[in-house]
Amino acid sequence: MIKRGQVVHSSPGETEQAFYDALEAGDLDALMALWADDEQIMCIHPGGPRLVGYESIRESWKEILASGTLRIRPMQVRAIEGMMVAIHNLQEQVLVSGSRSSQVVEVSATNVYLKGPQGWKMVLHHASPATETDENEEIDTSPTLH
Amino acid sequence: MIKRGQVVHSSPGETEQAFYDALEAGDLDALMALWADDEQIMCIHPGGPRLVGYESIRESWKEILASGTLRIRPMQVRAIEGMMVAIHNLQEQVLVSGSRSSQVVEVSATNVYLKGPQGWKMVLHHASPATETDENEEIDTSPTLH
Repeated sequence: MIKRGQVVHSSPGETEQAFYDALEAGDLDALMALWADDEQIMCIHPGGPRLVGYESIRESWKEILASGTLRIRPMQVRAIEGMMVAIHNLQEQVLVSGSRSSQVVEVSATNVYLKGPQGWKMVLHHASPATETDENEEIDTSPTLH
Repeated sequence: MIKRGQVVHSSPGETEQAFYDALEAGDLDALMALWADDEQIMCIHPGGPRLVGYESIRESWKEILASGTLRIRPMQVRAIEGMMVAIHNLQEQVLVSGSRSSQVVEVSATNVYLKGPQGWKMVLHHASPATETDENEEIDTSPTLH
C-alpha cells in the first residue's frame, strides 16, 4: 500500500478542492492520500453500501474511475467548522463520462475532515442521490413559523 | 420557538439514543432539543433537499411525524470519535407506520455530534436510501489487494 502523504493541506477547503481535482484527473493515489490514516474512515457512494477502511474505499474508487473520469462541480457548500473538525455538505453536479455517452447526476455529499499532524484529512464521504436544488433551504423554510 | 435544553447528554451515544427514542415517541420538542444551537445545523432526509437551520429542520420532522411515528432500529453503528466531535454512520431499519399500512425501509444515516456547554449535540443528520446490508464492509473488501 503506497500513500502519498507529502502534501499537507492547511484548510478543509483545500483538501476538498484536491478531492474533486483528483476525481477529475482520475488520480487514485492522489485521491486516497487525502484520507486520514485511520481504520475507521468511511465512504458511502450513492445507493451503495457503507465502506469502512482504506482498502475497501480505495477499491471502490478504483472501480468507479475505471469506468471513466468524474467531472464534478461542487456547489452550494455549507460548512460547520471548528478548530479540529470541518463538516461540509454540498451539491455535486456529476458529469459521468463513459466511452459512449455522458450524463449529469445530482448528488448530495457530506464530507467530514479532521485536522491532524498531516493537515486536514477526509474521514467520511457520504454521497446520496439528490434532486436538483437551488439554495432550497431558503425556500423550504416554512413561513408558518415566522 | 421553545427549546428544551435541560437534558445534558454526556456522550454522543446518549444523544443518538435520545434521537431515535424521540422519533419513536413522536416527540418533536425532545427531538429538536438534541440539535446544537447553531444556524448552520444540517439535515438531509432520504432523497430530499438539504435543510439548513433550526426552523427548516423542525418543520420537516413535524411533517414526517404527522404522518405517523417512526420506529427505527439503529444497527451497525460505526464511529469516529474525538474529544469534541463524533461522526457516526449506521444502518437504520425504519418501520414506517401509517394509518393503513406499515413498511420497512433501509436507510444509511450519518450523524455528527459536537460537544459544547450543553453536552453532545447533533449538528448534521444525513440519511439516504440504502440496500439491506449485513456488515457489508467485510465482504466488500477486495481480496485482490491482499
